[in-house]
Amino acid sequence: MRRGLSPMRERAETMVREAQETICRALEELDGGRFRADVWARDGGGGGVSRILQDGPVIEKAGVNTSVVWGELPEDAARALAGGHNHPVSGRSFFAAGISVIVHPRNPYAPTAHCNVRYFERAGGDDAGAWWFGGGADLTPCYLFDEDAAHFHRTMKAACDRHDAAFYPRFKRWCDEYFFLPHRGEARGVGGIFFDDLHDRPADRLLDFARDCALAFVPAYVPVIDRRKDTPYGEAERRWQELRRGRYVEFNLVYDRGTSFGLKTGGRTESVLVSLPPVVRWEYAVEVDDGSPEARLLEALRTPREWA
Amino acid sequence: MRRGLSPMRERAETMVREAQETICRALEELDGGRFRADVWARDGGGGGVSRILQDGPVIEKAGVNTSVVWGELPEDAARALAGGHNHPVSGRSFFAAGISVIVHPRNPYAPTAHCNVRYFERAGGDDAGAWWFGGGADLTPCYLFDEDAAHFHRTMKAACDRHDAAFYPRFKRWCDEYFFLPHRGEARGVGGIFFDDLHDRPADRLLDFARDCALAFVPAYVPVIDRRKDTPYGEAERRWQELRRGRYVEFNLVYDRGTSFGLKTGGRTESVLVSLPPVVRWEYAVEVDDGSPEARLLEALRTPREWA
Repeated sequence: MRRGLSPMRERAETMVREAQETICRALEELDGGRFRADVWARDGGGGGVSRILQDGPVIEKAGVNTSVVWGELPEDAARALAGGHNHPVSGRSFFAAGISVIVHPRNPYAPTAHCNVRYFERAGGDDAGAWWFGGGADLTPCYLFDEDAAHFHRTMKAACDRHDAAFYPRFKRWCDEYFFLPHRGEARGVGGIFFDDLHDRPADRLLDFARDCALAFVPAYVPVIDRRKDTPYGEAERRWQELRRGRYVEFNLVYDRGTSFGLKTGGRTESVLVSLPPVVRWEYAVEVDDGSPEARLLEALRTPREWA
Repeated sequence: MRRGLSPMRERAETMVREAQETICRALEELDGGRFRADVWARDGGGGGVSRILQDGPVIEKAGVNTSVVWGELPEDAARALAGGHNHPVSGRSFFAAGISVIVHPRNPYAPTAHCNVRYFERAGGDDAGAWWFGGGADLTPCYLFDEDAAHFHRTMKAACDRHDAAFYPRFKRWCDEYFFLPHRGEARGVGGIFFDDLHDRPADRLLDFARDCALAFVPAYVPVIDRRKDTPYGEAERRWQELRRGRYVEFNLVYDRGTSFGLKTGGRTESVLVSLPPVVRWEYAVEVDDGSPEARLLEALRTPREWA
């Protein structure tokens, strides 16, 4: 069913594969290590390539995964799935091509970062509105450096601005709203951009935007991790990093729609859960000292700021 | 609204408080350390006592929490909440008294264990069926010792058998079904008992059963942790324990109804999430050697056994 029906499918697939290559090369150059690749096939249609780097000198764990899948959605998933709102589809057939990037650095002063773009079609995708793009990129520090957050936001903003000056403010706010843990009263990180169900202009123009997002992740993030990777730290900073990683797990397992969609529609578990950090800690009722760097981070997570 | 309306409320509260005292004493005697107590009040009615022991020589993290809460359920929670099925209630008022116990030992050969009992009323609780009991106790080893699983199951079975010979087989199967991670194709552990929405005999008899369950946790579990706590281990066993704890987190955050009910109805976050293990690890696509102790555990988690 995949090939021939929609040229966008081919183009979206090419885009995610090229972005995977570019991002992996940039991260390998930063770390010095090599990604391994696992190629997997999906029962029902399609498959993916999971590229993983673990235990490098700079990167403790990174996953750069692509998947190009199609077939029939499980009934629950078809009901739950956002997208194509202004042109509802009754069928369950779908096509999706996406790339998902997660980097957990070793150094507690170097922030975790995530990026994802995806193209989705339902019910054949020949009707306007039955396809859409989603994605974004966001930064999750354990210790806040204003200049890192500003650099990341400005770089993603520049990628947005090349397409529509309204994108960045809208997608920045959406990111703050989406990556929020209500039970903690905290954002997951200092944000970035997030968008979903985007289908308000021609698909080829949105594909260009999605590509720019994925590629902008490299200049947005690599200089940040590069300048923090050798900062000296001790056990206290490592403990704080592990505790903060606990929040990352809480968000991804309790709230993230991509994770629960992946787990509940029979996605490849190891690829879905590669987003989880390598070493994580939960302690009861952790307290931080007023005015400490830890308190400064928490304050930033409780009140979203304008960084760009 | 709480006092006076239902003598069961008082008796359930007394039961959970006494069980908390008994269980904490037994765990303190085992570990040598002391539980701290945090008393908290709930906006809208009631509160709880969270008792926590962290970083002891035997117990790396334990929580023994009680809560006695009442008021109005949020609309979502009222709709989603199981219980009282054969006597549906339209109102949103509720009362709940429960105790929840989680013990994460330090030694990888000593299993994690969990126990919980709770009494629930809806819409005043004067109508039959608008109250129920739930609970259970289950064991989660990282390394399987058949005699530990058998001892735990036999002790819980004896507690069940004192009330109804049909309880154990029914609640054992329910436990295997409930504590299951579909995305891993694994049970969380080697099971135990689990029950919910129990209201098929007089409340005072079910209260006696719930009390027996909570108290049986001590002889079911303490001898097991006691005989494993000093087993020598190295980094490989510790790593395996941390990886297995990752599964525990996945279950609790993705599937456990108590956890998501707690987080989404404004429960006290630190008390709800005290169940999460202290140090946890996720690595990509971990493999175990055929015939190894690690493989033996995985085999037991994939096919539930009769242990009693």
